[in-house]
Amino acid sequence: MSEDGSIFARSKAAFDLPDGLVYLAGSRFGLMPRSAKERLCRLMMPGGAADLGSERFTADWEDLPGRIGDKIAPLIGVRQGEVTLGETLQLQLFQAISAAVSLYTGPKRTVVLTDTSNSASDLAVMEGIARALGCRLRVIDPTRICYCLCDDVAVLAMSAVNVQTAERRDIATLTRLTHEAGALTVWDLSHAVGALEIDLAGACADFAVGRTEQYLNGGPGAPAFLWASNRFIDRVTPALQGQKADRPSSPDQTAADPHPPRKIDRLRLGTPSLIALTALDAALDLWAGLDLTAISQRAGALGQAFLAEVDAHCPGLTLISPRIAAARGAELIYHHPKAAHLTQSLQAQGVIADCPAPDRLRIGFAPLYNDFSDIDPAVRALEQALATL
Amino acid sequence: MSEDGSIFARSKAAFDLPDGLVYLAGSRFGLMPRSAKERLCRLMMPGGAADLGSERFTADWEDLPGRIGDKIAPLIGVRQGEVTLGETLQLQLFQAISAAVSLYTGPKRTVVLTDTSNSASDLAVMEGIARALGCRLRVIDPTRICYCLCDDVAVLAMSAVNVQTAERRDIATLTRLTHEAGALTVWDLSHAVGALEIDLAGACADFAVGRTEQYLNGGPGAPAFLWASNRFIDRVTPALQGQKADRPSSPDQTAADPHPPRKIDRLRLGTPSLIALTALDAALDLWAGLDLTAISQRAGALGQAFLAEVDAHCPGLTLISPRIAAARGAELIYHHPKAAHLTQSLQAQGVIADCPAPDRLRIGFAPLYNDFSDIDPAVRALEQALATL
Repeated sequence: MSEDGSIFARSKAAFDLPDGLVYLAGSRFGLMPRSAKERLCRLMMPGGAADLGSERFTADWEDLPGRIGDKIAPLIGVRQGEVTLGETLQLQLFQAISAAVSLYTGPKRTVVLTDTSNSASDLAVMEGIARALGCRLRVIDPTRICYCLCDDVAVLAMSAVNVQTAERRDIATLTRLTHEAGALTVWDLSHAVGALEIDLAGACADFAVGRTEQYLNGGPGAPAFLWASNRFIDRVTPALQGQKADRPSSPDQTAADPHPPRKIDRLRLGTPSLIALTALDAALDLWAGLDLTAISQRAGALGQAFLAEVDAHCPGLTLISPRIAAARGAELIYHHPKAAHLTQSLQAQGVIADCPAPDRLRIGFAPLYNDFSDIDPAVRALEQALATL
Repeated sequence: MSEDGSIFARSKAAFDLPDGLVYLAGSRFGLMPRSAKERLCRLMMPGGAADLGSERFTADWEDLPGRIGDKIAPLIGVRQGEVTLGETLQLQLFQAISAAVSLYTGPKRTVVLTDTSNSASDLAVMEGIARALGCRLRVIDPTRICYCLCDDVAVLAMSAVNVQTAERRDIATLTRLTHEAGALTVWDLSHAVGALEIDLAGACADFAVGRTEQYLNGGPGAPAFLWASNRFIDRVTPALQGQKADRPSSPDQTAADPHPPRKIDRLRLGTPSLIALTALDAALDLWAGLDLTAISQRAGALGQAFLAEVDAHCPGLTLISPRIAAARGAELIYHHPKAAHLTQSLQAQGVIADCPAPDRLRIGFAPLYNDFSDIDPAVRALEQALATL
């Protein structure tokens, strides 16, 4: 076994996959590693933090979003202390977009630009955010971004992976174009973090948000993260300034604060559930020492192996995603008029895929727990599903 | 043992209190019952929802905030389907205040009125909310509310229990005065729900929010709830309209939706952590069949018993809270110049109280797990703490 192979064998062993089950869902839900589940159960032991810790663990808990942020920072190419956690993705988007809008002091820019590849519900959320900020949401074709960066655009808010096609966006290029147009970027890394190499600092990006429930394995509804560039963290005014905005020292504090506030805390609004944070904190320990280049290459290689097998054995499926791994996220999306039935049939055969629309089959490759041994049974099951339609 | 006594003996037995420990912290953190911790651990079992449920449990999970809301509804005197869960208290306050402000169609009212008894961090949050809505926050002395309900006031946002004094507010009277002044109310029930009788519908209240981590035992950072009166749930426009605002039917849905959207979902923004929701859901099962009048009377009676003992044995402590149980929340707050040291000394003796300010000692009585047997050891420990200052 190659060195990479043995690293990934170890990471796969960290998950409780039942024998014979192949989990290839490309939806926003990844699996939780055993260590996260065990950590939660320990927290729930009699006498644990959930019992009487309150008065003892409060300071530690309040600092947990920052400490978890420090574990996410290297996965997105930013520095320690620049990432925080909290709430749902929707709120983090609100904080990021409002903070970006707050930076304009010159001629008024009032457009939040995004693209049609977002789901209807994501567009509804962004519509609400734009309205709350006194801005307008402009929804454009994703291929026409460079034509639409007009001088009324305040923010380009985009997913790093097109959720309709799994096409990967070039964060560095789009950020540069956006800056040349005088606007700022808010990247949604939900479908990218933990599967692709991301270098926000290298791309000179401005803001980023992301869910942590897919490739970061934090569990369903795990807290979302928020990053703001240190180029302007001192100057932004998010719409909602929480209790962290200007945290005073505790009045009875005699020693130095063991958890000095971080600048990114200015964008924090409260402290999420200790339980949810603890699970995510434990799940992120899996990433210590892993090489992001190898992770990203593995996601791509798994996809290439799968699509070659599907090409050979599953006529009738039309690939919507790019055929080139480097142009894709970690998912493959196929068109088939009966994709919903295929998904159910796969599930009955122990292969979990997902169906983002009735005619779309999505297969996701999580580098930490999928490996090449998943390909053959999944493609056999797909062949079988197609044969029995 | 009286019938009430045996009911409360059962509820106390639902918690994992170590022998000899007396938990009387009046902070926002209550204990989690064993059943909630066990439910979480079951969720974490191999093959449980955290593993592969994603595709199977999604619809159920998305409906969980509403189902939990239905368990909270009877505790605050409102109907099924009117309460939802999500995020932190701060976001729920934002949704409630912005929804209230959205109802004004006549002359512009731009003041959010609150009082000086809120903590500095709560005031900072409300300041941020008011600013985000283009309103101003006006912070007044709590005794002067009826003088300050001017015709520029849009919303009176108050805690149902004064956190500085534990004085209980008269929700019905203040709501009536506010309505007569042409404004709306947003009640923060964090320190009241689960300890006091609350009848929002009877009080003709408008909006309410609350944490669920104190007397509802949802665990640290448990999701906060939000209620809006059905008098105007169809008309409000919260600042942040989430994916739930106008949820379309699933395109491949052939049967009837098992979880039809609730009107209160219009104020929801995303779905909180499954893990955090599950713990709270289990914790709320303790309330089935409990009588809120008995709960409230018990909190009051525990307080009266404690303060009589302190009067007799602990000179030097000055009661800040009202002496009449019916005028109080479930806490007693004392002034003592060395309250922080007293709190530490109590803790060393196995009595957990809390210290909201260096010269304030706060004792909270959770009807579900505190009983009269806690009074004597707590007062003895306090005597001892005072004697050794």
